[in-house]
Amino acid sequence: MNRKMVFYTCGRMLLLEAVLLTLPLLTAIFYRESCFLSILAGVAAALLCGGIIMLLSKPKEGDVTAIYSREGFIITALTWVLYSAIGALPFVISGEIPSYIDAFFETVSGFTTTGASILTDVESMSKGLLMWRSFTHWVGGMGILVMVLAVTPMSNDRSMHIMRAEMPGPVVGKLVPKAKQTAKILYIMYFILTLLEIILLLIGGMSLFEAMIYSFGTAGTGGFGCYADSMGGFSPYLQWVVTVFMFIFGINFNLYYLLLIKRFKAVFSSEELWTYAGIVFISTAAIAVNIRPLYGTASEAIRHSAFQVMSIVSTSGFATTDFNLWNGFSKAILVILMIIGACAGSTAGGLKVSRVIMLFKSVKCELKRMLHPRSVSAVRFEGKPLDRQTISGVAFYFAIYVAIIFAVFLAISWEPFDFETKFTSVLACFNNVGPGLGAVGPAGSFAGYSWITKLVLSFSMLLGRLEIYPMLFMLSPSVWRRQM
Amino acid sequence: MNRKMVFYTCGRMLLLEAVLLTLPLLTAIFYRESCFLSILAGVAAALLCGGIIMLLSKPKEGDVTAIYSREGFIITALTWVLYSAIGALPFVISGEIPSYIDAFFETVSGFTTTGASILTDVESMSKGLLMWRSFTHWVGGMGILVMVLAVTPMSNDRSMHIMRAEMPGPVVGKLVPKAKQTAKILYIMYFILTLLEIILLLIGGMSLFEAMIYSFGTAGTGGFGCYADSMGGFSPYLQWVVTVFMFIFGINFNLYYLLLIKRFKAVFSSEELWTYAGIVFISTAAIAVNIRPLYGTASEAIRHSAFQVMSIVSTSGFATTDFNLWNGFSKAILVILMIIGACAGSTAGGLKVSRVIMLFKSVKCELKRMLHPRSVSAVRFEGKPLDRQTISGVAFYFAIYVAIIFAVFLAISWEPFDFETKFTSVLACFNNVGPGLGAVGPAGSFAGYSWITKLVLSFSMLLGRLEIYPMLFMLSPSVWRRQM
Repeated sequence: MNRKMVFYTCGRMLLLEAVLLTLPLLTAIFYRESCFLSILAGVAAALLCGGIIMLLSKPKEGDVTAIYSREGFIITALTWVLYSAIGALPFVISGEIPSYIDAFFETVSGFTTTGASILTDVESMSKGLLMWRSFTHWVGGMGILVMVLAVTPMSNDRSMHIMRAEMPGPVVGKLVPKAKQTAKILYIMYFILTLLEIILLLIGGMSLFEAMIYSFGTAGTGGFGCYADSMGGFSPYLQWVVTVFMFIFGINFNLYYLLLIKRFKAVFSSEELWTYAGIVFISTAAIAVNIRPLYGTASEAIRHSAFQVMSIVSTSGFATTDFNLWNGFSKAILVILMIIGACAGSTAGGLKVSRVIMLFKSVKCELKRMLHPRSVSAVRFEGKPLDRQTISGVAFYFAIYVAIIFAVFLAISWEPFDFETKFTSVLACFNNVGPGLGAVGPAGSFAGYSWITKLVLSFSMLLGRLEIYPMLFMLSPSVWRRQM
Repeated sequence: MNRKMVFYTCGRMLLLEAVLLTLPLLTAIFYRESCFLSILAGVAAALLCGGIIMLLSKPKEGDVTAIYSREGFIITALTWVLYSAIGALPFVISGEIPSYIDAFFETVSGFTTTGASILTDVESMSKGLLMWRSFTHWVGGMGILVMVLAVTPMSNDRSMHIMRAEMPGPVVGKLVPKAKQTAKILYIMYFILTLLEIILLLIGGMSLFEAMIYSFGTAGTGGFGCYADSMGGFSPYLQWVVTVFMFIFGINFNLYYLLLIKRFKAVFSSEELWTYAGIVFISTAAIAVNIRPLYGTASEAIRHSAFQVMSIVSTSGFATTDFNLWNGFSKAILVILMIIGACAGSTAGGLKVSRVIMLFKSVKCELKRMLHPRSVSAVRFEGKPLDRQTISGVAFYFAIYVAIIFAVFLAISWEPFDFETKFTSVLACFNNVGPGLGAVGPAGSFAGYSWITKLVLSFSMLLGRLEIYPMLFMLSPSVWRRQM
């Protein structure tokens, strides 16, 4: 592996984190908060670390600067870890989250758009740090490296290997031939949609600060808010706006690009979109009927059901009500939605609807083959036949996905919580949802876990956001070897 | 599909159930129990039903009598359902299990070698019916149809399609070219091993009745006993004998055949055997250390750990202690063992060690391919390269396996039990283990569930024992069509 280029690129990435920290910095200045200094310290740390890494690994003349897929995986994994490590500093320095492990957990949870929190009193946090916490959702949602690709010059080949490592979904498509252009278009659409949500929330009576916090959380499908009851205290209008935008940000962004270039037919014949919409509709209806007795009116039951379903399936993790108090059937639906997640190419986590469709179709095809051993039928998705490699790739991804769930569960199983809490902690972190059930439900927090478990869960959030492989490669000594 | 031949074959199978019922009949006569008459009624029902079905579907001269894989699947699925439906009658008629649904659950649990019970007071049952209950384990363990193949004449082609549908594991191998011979050899080895266990248990002081009950339960990896504390009341010697035999019956029977024909090298180079032994050893060690403080001596902790590990990984479900009281780490290991199961071609349930190995190796191969897209490396198992179809077959099996776990969980999620109880109920039934955790732990029972859930869990036991496909095909209308 080309270690020099890996470190050099990661160093460059870190410099951008300093730029990102200016948004919370400005917020702190605006509200005249003392956390201003600790955010500044974060800026300094990012510049310093980035600068030192770049100096130490600067390629000399004649060095190979090519990047291949393995370098792309490692750059991605390392950048995410470094961003979280540095991004945690302002929380610690300000004293608002005294433990570094806690702050690291919270920052990883932010960047990976998980939204799992160790805070027990979010309302006592300073506005500057709340802004940073939610802004990490926005950046992590579309991708740290995709952002860098959009704003810095880099060769097309190199960009593609990085982009492929960071973008979720079984097949990463470029919108346009150049990766840099693709990244730019993605971020512009992302920015416009976020702006639209901020405006609609402002109209509903939120302050600009609140609107930004909740829009960042929705856009990245993260779920950090600024109130203890998440979105429970807001008006039905605001709750519905967020519900709709959670749906919007759970859709494959390729479709928005197709809308832009007026290929409407392609959008409305998207199998993944319709399946996603179907899952949302059926789950909402089933839960609404099931929880009807808990709420005064049918419309309230539908609103809470739709919000919670969208929140979980898009892996955001906002809540308007404590769904941990719902009965077993509704909770089981939510657990299954946690695993499925939303569309590939969106900002959501989970297995992704397209993978579920591909698995389902492959199994159907396998059943046919068992009855008619000599028949040959191809699995088709979005109108195109899938090659065997893609199909088995999805099947193996699923196998490792399930194996990781049980491995992480085993790793945290010694904690003195009940089965439900521990199992859904793993699902909620690994699928980047945020809240689980039991003690980590929407009314609870991850504060009760030991520091070891917090590290394990942080790792599993990164595993989930980067779709497993980059993090595994980062831990594999053989990948780091110079010659391979 | 050749429906006539399907029904005709199923009818013939039922006649054998009448023969099987003679063992409990003799037991009841020996102990002069009144359940004698109800068992006799069961015999009559089996003969009557089998006779009527055969009469109605007797192929006329000129009818096609060929059986292909689809007929094999349906015959297998139907026979297992019919056997359970008729086998439940003696329990109901005798009044010892008044509800037919309960009796059906118990009988399915017996034949599928699950060992999940709705009985809350097993010690009040008559000896005749306890013998029947445990004997179903022995028959179901090696396979109802494999037994029929061993004792009745049938063409080789025909037998193979049935055998393939009933035998567990990703690749069904014949020991010898003729399926009938294979079935015979399997049953002879099975009989000898069971006899050996009975003798060793008799030496340890069990009565012949007890020795038969516990040997049937071990041989079929079922888990029904005749005492409320399962094996808790027996001496360490007896517990160790059962531990060792649970290990023995979890091994692929092909290996015993290889031993018989003196191909020792092939046996001792078996990847599946070593992996299985490794899993057992590591799990036993980890749990023994973890539960050490709960027991007086280290040897007691090791004994309980080894017994419970073997009981769960072989999917038997006996217990010497209430492992539901162990801490989270030990319980998490048991949950994972429930899923893995023992070797293919054994009497155990679960995913099977060979599938886990194949999945693990395939994922490793996939990871390599991601780093070196142009490299080609084959997955090898037991020294032979696996073709792509087998590998993807295993991956798709795993996908449908996980999907069923969550589907069944959703179906029973409305029950008023905690998450742990419901989730492990599904795992324990679907993997044919028997006891789960929480309210269905070794000290509990499945009695608290509604009749709907009992039916759903019965179905999932059959799904698990027959490895999913036969039951799915039975429910698919298109498979039943005359022309296909």
